[in-house]
Amino acid sequence: MRISGTHYRTIWSTDSGAVRVIDQSRLPFELVTLDLETVADAAHAIRTMVVRGAPLIGATAAYGIALAARADPCDSHLAEAARTLQATRPTAVNLAWALRRMHNVLAELEPHRRADAAWHEAAAICDADVEQCRSIGRHGLDVMRALAAKAGARLNILTHCNAGWLACVDWGTALAPVYMAHDAGIPVHVWVDETRPRNQGAALTAFELGAHGVPHTVVADNLGGHLMQRGQVDMVIVGSDRTTAAGEVCNKVGTYLKALAAHDNGVPFYAALPLSTIDWSLEAGEAIPIEERSPQEVTHITGRSAAGRIETVRLVPESSPALNLAFDVTPARLVTGLITERGVCAASRAGLQRLYPDQPAAVE
Amino acid sequence: MRISGTHYRTIWSTDSGAVRVIDQSRLPFELVTLDLETVADAAHAIRTMVVRGAPLIGATAAYGIALAARADPCDSHLAEAARTLQATRPTAVNLAWALRRMHNVLAELEPHRRADAAWHEAAAICDADVEQCRSIGRHGLDVMRALAAKAGARLNILTHCNAGWLACVDWGTALAPVYMAHDAGIPVHVWVDETRPRNQGAALTAFELGAHGVPHTVVADNLGGHLMQRGQVDMVIVGSDRTTAAGEVCNKVGTYLKALAAHDNGVPFYAALPLSTIDWSLEAGEAIPIEERSPQEVTHITGRSAAGRIETVRLVPESSPALNLAFDVTPARLVTGLITERGVCAASRAGLQRLYPDQPAAVE
Repeated sequence: MRISGTHYRTIWSTDSGAVRVIDQSRLPFELVTLDLETVADAAHAIRTMVVRGAPLIGATAAYGIALAARADPCDSHLAEAARTLQATRPTAVNLAWALRRMHNVLAELEPHRRADAAWHEAAAICDADVEQCRSIGRHGLDVMRALAAKAGARLNILTHCNAGWLACVDWGTALAPVYMAHDAGIPVHVWVDETRPRNQGAALTAFELGAHGVPHTVVADNLGGHLMQRGQVDMVIVGSDRTTAAGEVCNKVGTYLKALAAHDNGVPFYAALPLSTIDWSLEAGEAIPIEERSPQEVTHITGRSAAGRIETVRLVPESSPALNLAFDVTPARLVTGLITERGVCAASRAGLQRLYPDQPAAVE
Repeated sequence: MRISGTHYRTIWSTDSGAVRVIDQSRLPFELVTLDLETVADAAHAIRTMVVRGAPLIGATAAYGIALAARADPCDSHLAEAARTLQATRPTAVNLAWALRRMHNVLAELEPHRRADAAWHEAAAICDADVEQCRSIGRHGLDVMRALAAKAGARLNILTHCNAGWLACVDWGTALAPVYMAHDAGIPVHVWVDETRPRNQGAALTAFELGAHGVPHTVVADNLGGHLMQRGQVDMVIVGSDRTTAAGEVCNKVGTYLKALAAHDNGVPFYAALPLSTIDWSLEAGEAIPIEERSPQEVTHITGRSAAGRIETVRLVPESSPALNLAFDVTPARLVTGLITERGVCAASRAGLQRLYPDQPAAVE
C-alpha cells in the first residue's frame, strides 16, 4: 500500500541480494528499513518484532531459509536454520507453514541448486500472500457492502491489533476489505484498539490507515464494549495468528473480550485469514501454545517526547511484577464468520471443510 | 492505610486550616501532598484527577463547600460553589450526594454558623466513609473466605481501575476486603488491570497493594479474559461510580468487558460500593451520563524515564484522532452480587431494597 504516495511492501529483496524490511518497531514515528543478510538477522527481526503479523512472519522465515541456503545449502545447516527460525515465536502457525513449504521444495534438490530455488520460493510465498490478501479483501468487501447498506450514514468497523498490510506483505487480512471499501466509496470509519501492551493498533493500524486516508479513531482497548452498547460499532474484524480446524480463532490478546461484547450486542464478528493460518492438526483452541513475552512490554512503554526524542518510560512501580501473554483464543461460537481467500464460511469444521475440501483434516 | 509504615488517609485538614490531599497524579513515582485553600482549588483537584475515585470525589467536594463557607457563607456564594464543584465530573454520583448533604446541613443555619458546621460535616463525611469502607471490607471478606476455601492454593482476584484506599478516604471499596483477607492470612493474589488510558491500576492499585505487601501482578487490560479461560481468576471485584436502583453498575471503562468474560467462564463478579454510590433516581444504566475526557489521555502517556525524569510521550501518529470515554455500564445480569456497608445483595431492585428499606426508591 502507499505511504505518502509511494507504494511499499513490507518485505522485498534488494539488487544487492539482501532482504529489506520496514522496521516496524520504529513506527509510527520513523519510517526506516533494515537489511537482513543472514538467517540470524531474520530470526532477530522476527523475535524483536521488527517484523510481526502472522503472514509477514511466515514470509520473513522463508527469506531466512533463502539466506541460510545461500550461506551453506547442506541439509544440516538448513535444518539448523529452520530450528532457529521456528523458535522465534511460538503462536503464529504461518511460521511453521512457511518453513515446511521451504523444506518440501529444497529437500528434493541437489545442494548446489538450493540457493536459487529458495530465493525463488520465498518470493513466490510473498507474491502468493499478496494475492491471497487481495482475495480476502474482495470477499470481505462483499460482507462490508451488505452491512453498509444496513448501517446508514457510515459503517463503523472495530479492529484489534494490526492485521493490515504491515502484518502481511501487502493489503493485509482484516484491513484489506477496509481499504477496498474505502476506495469503492463506502463511508467506512475504523475504531482502532490501541492494543496494549505493544500498541500495534495505536502505532501501526493508525499509521497505515492514516497514510491511506481512511477515517479512523484510536481508542483504549477498554472502550470497545461501551461503543457496542451505544450502537456505534457495526462490525468487528480481526486477523488471526492460528485458527483451528474447528474454527477457534487465536489472535492478539484482548480479541476474546471484543468477541464477547460483539456477541452480547448483536454485532457481527469476523476473522480474516489465509489458508496458511489454519492449523488442521488442532481442534480445540486450548491446545494452542500462547507466547509469553517480556514483562517489560507491560511495565514500560515507548513514545515520542515533546522534544522529539523516542523515549521509553516506566509505568508501573519498580517493585510490582507484570505478566505478558500475547494471545488469546476466541471460541468459534462467538465468531460470525471466517473470511478467507476462498470466500466466507462459518467458524466450524464443516465451514472450513466446505472451502478447503483439498486440505488434510487431521483431527476428526 | 500504610505507606512505608506510616498511616495515611487520602484527605485531611491541617492545623493551619487547609485541606491536604495526596496528589495522585504524581503516583506511583512521587508521594507528594497538595494543600487546597479555596473552592477553586478543590474543583481543580477533582477535575485534574489529583483526587479521584467516587468516594474521595465526594469527600473533596464536601471540603470544597467548607472552604467556600469560610470565605463567604451567604446562600448565593455557597450555591455558586456547589455548581462549580458539581461541574467537575459528571459520572460519579457521590459528588452530587455530598453536595446535597452539605446543603441540607448548611441551609438551615444562620450564615455566621455555617463555616464551622461545614468543616465539621466534611470531616464527618470522611469519617463515615472510613467506617463504610471498613464494613464493606468485612462483608467482602466473608465472600473471599468462602471462595478461598474452594480455590485451593491461592485466591486469584482480578480488579479493574483503582477502588482501593486511594479512591476513598481509607480502606477502599473493592480492595478493603483484599486487605482484610491478606491480613487474616488468606493467600490472596491480585491481577491488577493497568486500566488504560489513565493507568490507575498500574499506577495506583499496584502502588497501594505493594505498599501494604499484598502479592499482585500487573497485566494489560486485554489479558483478563484469557486468564479466566485458563482458570486463573477465582473472583472479579471492582468499585462503582454510580449504581442504579436496579443494580446496573457504572464503573471505569472496560469493566463491562471483564464482567462478560467472568460470566462466560463462571467466575463470580462483584461490585463493592457504599450507599452514596447508589442513584435511586435511575433504573437503566443507559441513562447515566458518561464523561468524555481529553483525547490526549489516549494519545499520550506519562511515566518515568531511565534517567529518572517524569516524561510524557506521544503514542499515536500526530494525524490520528482519539476518543476517550471514561466509564461504561455493566448490566445487572452480569453481576453476581453487590457488596455494600450493609451486606451483600443481588444486583437488582429487590436486592437493594432488602438492604436499604429506609431509602426512597424513586423509580418503580
